Amino acid sequence: MATKLNARDAKTMKRIGEMADGVVEAAGKKRDPFVDVPTRSLSNVKYNKARRFIEMGKATNRRHLFNLSQAKSYMQTMLVASGATQLIEQGKTTSIRGLFYLLKHTIEGTKEETFADQGECDPVIEDCEVLLNSLREELHLYAQKKGDMVGDIVLLDRGDEIDCSRMGSGGYGIPSIVEPEAIEFKRTSAQFILHVEKDTVWQRFNEDKFWRKHKCILTHGGGQPPRGVRRLLHRLHNELKLPIYCLLDNDPWGYYIYSVIKQGSINLAYESQRMAIPDAKFLGIRSKDFEECKLSDSVKISLNDTDRKRAKQIANYPWFAHKPLWQKEIKRLLDNGFKLEVEALISKDISYVTEHYTPQRLKSKEWLD
Amino acid sequence: MATKLNARDAKTMKRIGEMADGVVEAAGKKRDPFVDVPTRSLSNVKYNKARRFIEMGKATNRRHLFNLSQAKSYMQTMLVASGATQLIEQGKTTSIRGLFYLLKHTIEGTKEETFADQGECDPVIEDCEVLLNSLREELHLYAQKKGDMVGDIVLLDRGDEIDCSRMGSGGYGIPSIVEPEAIEFKRTSAQFILHVEKDTVWQRFNEDKFWRKHKCILTHGGGQPPRGVRRLLHRLHNELKLPIYCLLDNDPWGYYIYSVIKQGSINLAYESQRMAIPDAKFLGIRSKDFEECKLSDSVKISLNDTDRKRAKQIANYPWFAHKPLWQKEIKRLLDNGFKLEVEALISKDISYVTEHYTPQRLKSKEWLD
Repeated sequence: MATKLNARDAKTMKRIGEMADGVVEAAGKKRDPFVDVPTRSLSNVKYNKARRFIEMGKATNRRHLFNLSQAKSYMQTMLVASGATQLIEQGKTTSIRGLFYLLKHTIEGTKEETFADQGECDPVIEDCEVLLNSLREELHLYAQKKGDMVGDIVLLDRGDEIDCSRMGSGGYGIPSIVEPEAIEFKRTSAQFILHVEKDTVWQRFNEDKFWRKHKCILTHGGGQPPRGVRRLLHRLHNELKLPIYCLLDNDPWGYYIYSVIKQGSINLAYESQRMAIPDAKFLGIRSKDFEECKLSDSVKISLNDTDRKRAKQIANYPWFAHKPLWQKEIKRLLDNGFKLEVEALISKDISYVTEHYTPQRLKSKEWLD
Repeated sequence: MATKLNARDAKTMKRIGEMADGVVEAAGKKRDPFVDVPTRSLSNVKYNKARRFIEMGKATNRRHLFNLSQAKSYMQTMLVASGATQLIEQGKTTSIRGLFYLLKHTIEGTKEETFADQGECDPVIEDCEVLLNSLREELHLYAQKKGDMVGDIVLLDRGDEIDCSRMGSGGYGIPSIVEPEAIEFKRTSAQFILHVEKDTVWQRFNEDKFWRKHKCILTHGGGQPPRGVRRLLHRLHNELKLPIYCLLDNDPWGYYIYSVIKQGSINLAYESQRMAIPDAKFLGIRSKDFEECKLSDSVKISLNDTDRKRAKQIANYPWFAHKPLWQKEIKRLLDNGFKLEVEALISKDISYVTEHYTPQRLKSKEWLD
């Protein structure tokens, strides 16, 4: 191995090494090599009430090399692990698309491709994450980059000092890989994090220098936040003990974004422990805000059938099902028959959301949990 | 007017004022007030060979107040202009969604809404842009924020000094409004700009510190670059005299992105003079690269019917129609029957694109114009 690995990379390599040793050992004993891949299906996902997030159960699927229906996925699993090894050894990272191209080739002496398309590669990457108990980012894979940050915090990003209070209107583009080896928090005087749904709302808060007045960190995730944003929020929350308040649209999509930030996602339940933030609060927009903020009829957007269906599904999520305030919130959305975007508050005043709505809700500690 | 306006805002306000004066004057003379809105249809768009970009012709549509079919759009035009006035006077900016909410209301004494939905507001914003000869950004409206920048340049963003060579892995998130009043270039030692299509490719170039070794500025626009990115590239190119090289996928979408950067877009032809960069070069990926870079069959992605149709359309664009090299490029794509993503080069080596492909093409000045 050419370069000296940092502690995290060494740990990941050790896990890959152990998996590879298992293969060698089985082969030495002339046994059928296999791996036990934790089952990533809904049946193996449950809400952990004590830890307050979605996590995977203990079910696994055994994947054999010498089984006609499993040989290909076994080989693909090993390939992804070897690709990660190569990236870690070279000290480089790539996208899941990049890894796909790195590993895609015609198997010698056959017309068989290692991977037909990206759709065949992605689940194997997820298998390797759970199998190796390593986040994708620890396998040196990055996701799409989305989301920006400004506010009262100075951090080191691969050695460059970034003062997020001096980032103008553009902000610091939150990278995809934000593990401690890449991003180190230097100092902050922020008291909390305000996470908003959209870049356009973020721009309003940044322009009004909300984060300076209220001593906070301001982030957005361009809709459903990508992994890098969720992981960064998780680290800011846990390492710097900063509470997180979410300002999202008053619609099922906004509820769902909050749910993923707070409890984790059902599809990627194995990452919850390093991404979910059970203490995140939902600041708004609330179903009662139409009346409470005296908004005009013209900002209403009618719920459609999908909205109604999604709202009912979300109300039944186990982490919302026993919360009377959330049941009331979602019921009122359905009773209203309309949804509200954060931008609807602009009809009051361009800066109503930064100068009245948010400060007042924070001051009166009025949020949903 | 409360705040002192900068020169650009004063100019925009003067234009809005002149339009408003026209209404008052007509009313004073008891004439029917009207505005002449330049026609934004394909029939009024042409390629200017001398200026080498798409521009609008001289056709206009007269919009009368006292005409049943035009009264509403006349009123909407005035509303958007008054919304822009309000934003400029307050020294604030908003999204087109924000402006919509700002202006949406039920007209007093009727059940008529000023705007039914965003789709009714957007074209009126475009009308106002051409009518007032002001970019949307000059009307204090911002678009979605997408795209990042790193490299050898220091700039002032609303007073904050941003050193784009010290931005870690995240980079500087390119804002939507990048007019000189907002963004000022302080110093650069960059020799050129490399613009890549996707954030994932940008991350590869940034991680390999390509911009440091080759003294350049590195940008991406998350696919089709948004207005802010195009305008920033235009300013960097013209004010700092930096050549621009584009590294895009070898497919009709990549060609089209290049076309918009270079010649402007057909839909928004009126903005060409401040966004189009006729001297931008297309570095790759080229149709010949499959052979030239000795790529394996496994990276080919078959063209579909839409691809073939789009490729033929693009070959017929007047700015490509008389360029033998472009005709050859597109013909070869069609003959190949497959497309290639930039990431396909990863199959050679993870850093092939940053260490071999791009440096070699730049050195041998091998690009399409």
